[in-house]
Amino acid sequence: MTIKHALPVTREQDFAAWYQAVIAEADMAEESGVRGCMVIRPWGYGIWERMQRLLDDRIKAAGYDNCYFPLFIPLSYFEKEAEHVEGFAKEMAVVTHHRLKSEGGKLVVDPDAKLEEPLVVRPTSETVIGAAFSRWVQSWRDLPMQINQWANVVRWEMRTRMFLRTSEFLWQEGHAAYADGKQALAETLKALELYRSFAEDCVALPVIAGEKPENERFPGAVATYSIEAMMQDGKALQAGTSHYLGDNFARAQNIRYQNDAGEIEFAHTISWGMSTRMIGGLIMTHGDDDGLRVPPRIAPYQVVIVPMLRDTEEDAAVLDYCRALAADLNAQAALGEPVRALLDARPAKAANKRWAWVKKGAPLIVEVGPRDMAGGNVSVIRRDRLYQESGKLASLVQPRAEFVASVAGLLEEIQAGLFAEAKARTDANIRRDVTDFAELERFFAESVKFPGWVEVEWARPTGAELDAVDQRLKALKLTLRNAPEKAAPATGTCIFTGRPALERVLVGRSY
Amino acid sequence: MTIKHALPVTREQDFAAWYQAVIAEADMAEESGVRGCMVIRPWGYGIWERMQRLLDDRIKAAGYDNCYFPLFIPLSYFEKEAEHVEGFAKEMAVVTHHRLKSEGGKLVVDPDAKLEEPLVVRPTSETVIGAAFSRWVQSWRDLPMQINQWANVVRWEMRTRMFLRTSEFLWQEGHAAYADGKQALAETLKALELYRSFAEDCVALPVIAGEKPENERFPGAVATYSIEAMMQDGKALQAGTSHYLGDNFARAQNIRYQNDAGEIEFAHTISWGMSTRMIGGLIMTHGDDDGLRVPPRIAPYQVVIVPMLRDTEEDAAVLDYCRALAADLNAQAALGEPVRALLDARPAKAANKRWAWVKKGAPLIVEVGPRDMAGGNVSVIRRDRLYQESGKLASLVQPRAEFVASVAGLLEEIQAGLFAEAKARTDANIRRDVTDFAELERFFAESVKFPGWVEVEWARPTGAELDAVDQRLKALKLTLRNAPEKAAPATGTCIFTGRPALERVLVGRSY
Repeated sequence: MTIKHALPVTREQDFAAWYQAVIAEADMAEESGVRGCMVIRPWGYGIWERMQRLLDDRIKAAGYDNCYFPLFIPLSYFEKEAEHVEGFAKEMAVVTHHRLKSEGGKLVVDPDAKLEEPLVVRPTSETVIGAAFSRWVQSWRDLPMQINQWANVVRWEMRTRMFLRTSEFLWQEGHAAYADGKQALAETLKALELYRSFAEDCVALPVIAGEKPENERFPGAVATYSIEAMMQDGKALQAGTSHYLGDNFARAQNIRYQNDAGEIEFAHTISWGMSTRMIGGLIMTHGDDDGLRVPPRIAPYQVVIVPMLRDTEEDAAVLDYCRALAADLNAQAALGEPVRALLDARPAKAANKRWAWVKKGAPLIVEVGPRDMAGGNVSVIRRDRLYQESGKLASLVQPRAEFVASVAGLLEEIQAGLFAEAKARTDANIRRDVTDFAELERFFAESVKFPGWVEVEWARPTGAELDAVDQRLKALKLTLRNAPEKAAPATGTCIFTGRPALERVLVGRSY
Repeated sequence: MTIKHALPVTREQDFAAWYQAVIAEADMAEESGVRGCMVIRPWGYGIWERMQRLLDDRIKAAGYDNCYFPLFIPLSYFEKEAEHVEGFAKEMAVVTHHRLKSEGGKLVVDPDAKLEEPLVVRPTSETVIGAAFSRWVQSWRDLPMQINQWANVVRWEMRTRMFLRTSEFLWQEGHAAYADGKQALAETLKALELYRSFAEDCVALPVIAGEKPENERFPGAVATYSIEAMMQDGKALQAGTSHYLGDNFARAQNIRYQNDAGEIEFAHTISWGMSTRMIGGLIMTHGDDDGLRVPPRIAPYQVVIVPMLRDTEEDAAVLDYCRALAADLNAQAALGEPVRALLDARPAKAANKRWAWVKKGAPLIVEVGPRDMAGGNVSVIRRDRLYQESGKLASLVQPRAEFVASVAGLLEEIQAGLFAEAKARTDANIRRDVTDFAELERFFAESVKFPGWVEVEWARPTGAELDAVDQRLKALKLTLRNAPEKAAPATGTCIFTGRPALERVLVGRSY
């Protein structure tokens, strides 16, 4: 039996179109009419709120305090760190005026209201937070200084794609200053580990943590680390980055402290960020041809109850039965928090509501009709096991009390199952046996639709030599992702230079 | 005995300077170096996070869903509602370019990167959310549509004051569409009531809810309602507003639906907002000459434990004792949530830490020295009763277990006490016996330092007549605040026009 899936296009047919279809059919976001900016709708924003809550708890537990810094950054702030501005200047939205006026019935920018110094809409906040650190850090007692900000940032992108690359996006940026470089580097890696555990434990996104090659560093950084996740089309998504900035920004912005011997030293700073891009990673990792599947930990609602109403007198009793069920579910705990159950009592057909929640990816959908009620039962659909082997929808009729008692276990099982599925797929799609460039070329040139990644040995070239590697890879539409922390040691020769290899590095297509 | 207070200036000496001193000494916020924008530091932002959490819970319970809309709004969106743009055009930050370039070693705006249509940094989001509503609302089944957004907004202010009036501020804006005007108006008032209860129950801010006079309406609104709070200097702070927009915005933006008879009708919309300004209201309501006093419900930490360390062997035991105390406190519940206790183990003198927390306004400060530990005791300072009658600091030594058992009751008492104190002051400073304009003039001309408000009867003039009233009041530095919902009925004559009065209205100085 061929299954008629809920989306108009499958992953196999057209992965990019499928991605857009999930976002549209799950009511997650839409184009706003403002170039490169999207509207994040309740289901998409609800997922972001869950991510925020869980990530924020971890950030606070790591000793960071939340603050808020200005949206606007004067041009002159950027001039202090040449590499940094070089990296962002081409994509900065600039405020030049502070007033409109009416001219012949049309609104125009008032030329008399030109700002003395143009203001950049923050693309990232190292410069303005660094300026604050230079005021706040005076003595070794003020260190470490660890600050986090939840904010919108703007990078003017020419080609945009919802969640993955938008001109405005939402993110969290951690910024910290330490007394010495060794500690700062260790803390950079701690932030990376925080991202890894958040991605894997909360979003069920298996990731590979490692250092980015020199040419992929954050502008102005000494070292950049990332977590990379493999999407279902085999491409890599950089899902979070952590940067060791050395004393580059401290020197540019005069972040200095008196050590306990009374000498003045520069601090060493780090920064790290994760954004709404993570939602794109969630879709491309857990979505299927019926829409999204949201891991229970970050699902705004984990259980959605759909009453089967028939415009009869029985409806009121069915609704009461559903209300009591929702209350009982919300009194349970799963995955360390109270269960989030919703009764969907909107005026729409039950079948339409069922499929709306399938497409949105609610982990459990519970249907209750008069017959279920009469038998003290509920009909349970697991989003992660939607179909029977026959291709029919899998709906399990079971006693209400039995379902309530089992809900915590079910949600934990779904969370773990989604991770295991993605992990197995990622592991199966990393080749580690490619030992020369021609083989790499051949592998990616073959007609495999979703080729995944190749982990190769390399000598970690830098400068012009690295640029040449980059060019050779670009010709194959490939990029260097990161050198995995946990890779096996290198034992052979670099596939790019032929020199003895120093470490292993991931190569793949990317978003 | 004269008390030597912790701030360099008292409320009586210079209220404006005292306000700045509280913000600085409590480390709440500071000037950012970016014109009109502030940096909100951890203690200030922590208070905002508490406000967000408590207000967001109420907004969700009212059936609103959170979304996110673009920061940038094309100029053309504003042209659709003439009154609306008229109200905001003079204070709009406008993005005109999307790239910088280097010119002779200096960064400049790249003239080749001019936007085709300038983008306004949102001063409020009616236009862009209305555009989304016009896509989302098709049938009566889509109504009500209730959306909330937490966001930063920008209004270019010439004179700024931290929290009260800044070019960029953080807020929440609720936007909703209903089938008819009667329901929309009722929902406008529901949002007003939500603000009243949030302000009074959470922030302990007594407020008066009522309708703003015509000249104080939100640009484009049919009616604007506010909650007004009296600051300790007798001035009014508008702490939240709710607007009934009729079908003005629906017509401008084509928000239409098919009713159940199949006819197309315009929806009726409302909007309502509350911002970081509330933190300014908190300071000027609950602050005293020793700094801020934060009501327990919105205090980031409700109990701060300060160990008295002496660089001796005993320190480790004292710290252990404090850690166990913090854990016991965090296991308690107060005001419907787990208690938030912090152990302040930073390397600084205990006395400095004590006074830092007094200035920040932590509700309870618990000091623990070796002697307290030996006796199984704690020394408790209540921020709301800092001094004994003699003028000495009031610190109560009591058994640790007794304190832990009493903490929930103490926090509830402090919350209620701060509200009662502010309520009594507000009530005592509203005169209701002024029956002619000369008397009003005389009252505010008298040398009373903090005169408070006067509630007078009026005929609710409109248009030019209202403008004339406004001018007469402005000459006395007064404004009309609102016509309180719960005022007594009018029985006499309007003090402005001499005509029979229709209702009572509040007059006062304001922020």
